[in-house]
Amino acid sequence: MSDIDQLSTEDEAFLRPYLPDDDAISKKERPFVTLTYACSLDGMISLSPGVRTTLSGPETKSMTHYLRAHHEAILVGVGTAIADDPSLNCRYSRSSSCPPQGLRPVVLDPTMRWDVAGSKATALASEGKGKAPWVVHATSVLDQNPEVAEQAKRLFVGTDGLCDEHSGDRTASISRLEWRSILKALYQKGIRSIMIEGGATVINDLLLQPELVDSVVVTIAPTWLGEGGVTVTPAQQTRDGVRVNAARLKETSWRQFGQDAVLCGRLE
Amino acid sequence: MSDIDQLSTEDEAFLRPYLPDDDAISKKERPFVTLTYACSLDGMISLSPGVRTTLSGPETKSMTHYLRAHHEAILVGVGTAIADDPSLNCRYSRSSSCPPQGLRPVVLDPTMRWDVAGSKATALASEGKGKAPWVVHATSVLDQNPEVAEQAKRLFVGTDGLCDEHSGDRTASISRLEWRSILKALYQKGIRSIMIEGGATVINDLLLQPELVDSVVVTIAPTWLGEGGVTVTPAQQTRDGVRVNAARLKETSWRQFGQDAVLCGRLE
Repeated sequence: MSDIDQLSTEDEAFLRPYLPDDDAISKKERPFVTLTYACSLDGMISLSPGVRTTLSGPETKSMTHYLRAHHEAILVGVGTAIADDPSLNCRYSRSSSCPPQGLRPVVLDPTMRWDVAGSKATALASEGKGKAPWVVHATSVLDQNPEVAEQAKRLFVGTDGLCDEHSGDRTASISRLEWRSILKALYQKGIRSIMIEGGATVINDLLLQPELVDSVVVTIAPTWLGEGGVTVTPAQQTRDGVRVNAARLKETSWRQFGQDAVLCGRLE
Repeated sequence: MSDIDQLSTEDEAFLRPYLPDDDAISKKERPFVTLTYACSLDGMISLSPGVRTTLSGPETKSMTHYLRAHHEAILVGVGTAIADDPSLNCRYSRSSSCPPQGLRPVVLDPTMRWDVAGSKATALASEGKGKAPWVVHATSVLDQNPEVAEQAKRLFVGTDGLCDEHSGDRTASISRLEWRSILKALYQKGIRSIMIEGGATVINDLLLQPELVDSVVVTIAPTWLGEGGVTVTPAQQTRDGVRVNAARLKETSWRQFGQDAVLCGRLE
């Protein structure tokens, strides 16, 4: 029996304005980007680095899988991939409004630390319960390390095209790929919409790049994790030497799902 | 013209289950305590310590004043009193369901650092726009400092009774009054319900004392303040040596007010 329920008509109507929009996609020449995560009232996504923490209830889990059904890819950073070994698949019953090709898992792993072969996402793909994961990495890692390159050819699916896109970025730090290039590479590989689900480093980075993010969906659970947890909070921002809010949403809409709330909006 | 609007019938119905309850009050022999604050999505109440930061919109401001109208006192810590110089009054049009005696401002100021005479709350009281503030302080401060004692007699309204309540606490740190004593003292001074509005030190402390808190009302604004802000997050908690959530709400209810959301619940 699935732990994923169908959303009510009202829940669907709440989310619809924030779903990928074909017109927007073709104009931007990058995938439609939905940034999404679940946090506590103290803005945290886990009790401590590398510890998987269940925050939201079953209703918002269903909501997350509904959103996944309406995207062509899902991306997480390598920290989350290693810590959580997430399924990165979609268990929502897909409808005619969903993209036909299903959900591609993508892990952002500049230096290729993730054990893709041993991952749950790869296992699910081999059972026909999802697509094989792609790994976004820096081309320079392959250049410098022929052994990893060999491994990459064998294990990593679909990374070659992505790497090539980063060939102009060799002067950039390997651990920080440039988001515009990542999204362009994924678009050229056929990805028209992507959900970016974490972890904190990835989200903090993108909250400061409103031009690359189309929708933001935050689930808030009514709990406080307490000092020392991992917080989603962007780097501090100043204007004329004075601290200002780091990021802000407009066109916001809130809705209760079980004990949690879901906030949808667009970055200002 | 007032910046405080009347709440809709739906807004009132949303808040009603969390308002002070006469039955509960007489059983507990302490005031009904509503803990309330407004924070960002990264769980912060201000951009940096001592900086007043406007987070929530006009709709939640009206909601806050509606709540104040249903309480007999409002309490903030001395840090907030000094940083914000808050009005601590109620500008909501009071109805027959509100307590008849109006709202008493209370500042928790163990070592009496707050300039009560020069405060906005005192000025408003002298204009008939609020009641004179009370200061909760440690009796030992008066004992040790006759000058402050003299000043206290002259300036501080209604503190004597409160001090006496703390005479059993002389061994305790002056800067950390015990919440049970504070609430008992206020109850014996006639306060039957109190809103506790901040700052972070006060809230973090009380989130870990569910037996002293009846309702929690959190307003969340759709913005991230960014690293280095002041976060509401309780001290970390462990069970059997393993980190666990520091606090959690039950019987939660969420509602959108303008761009913000309001969460009501009770501490588990």
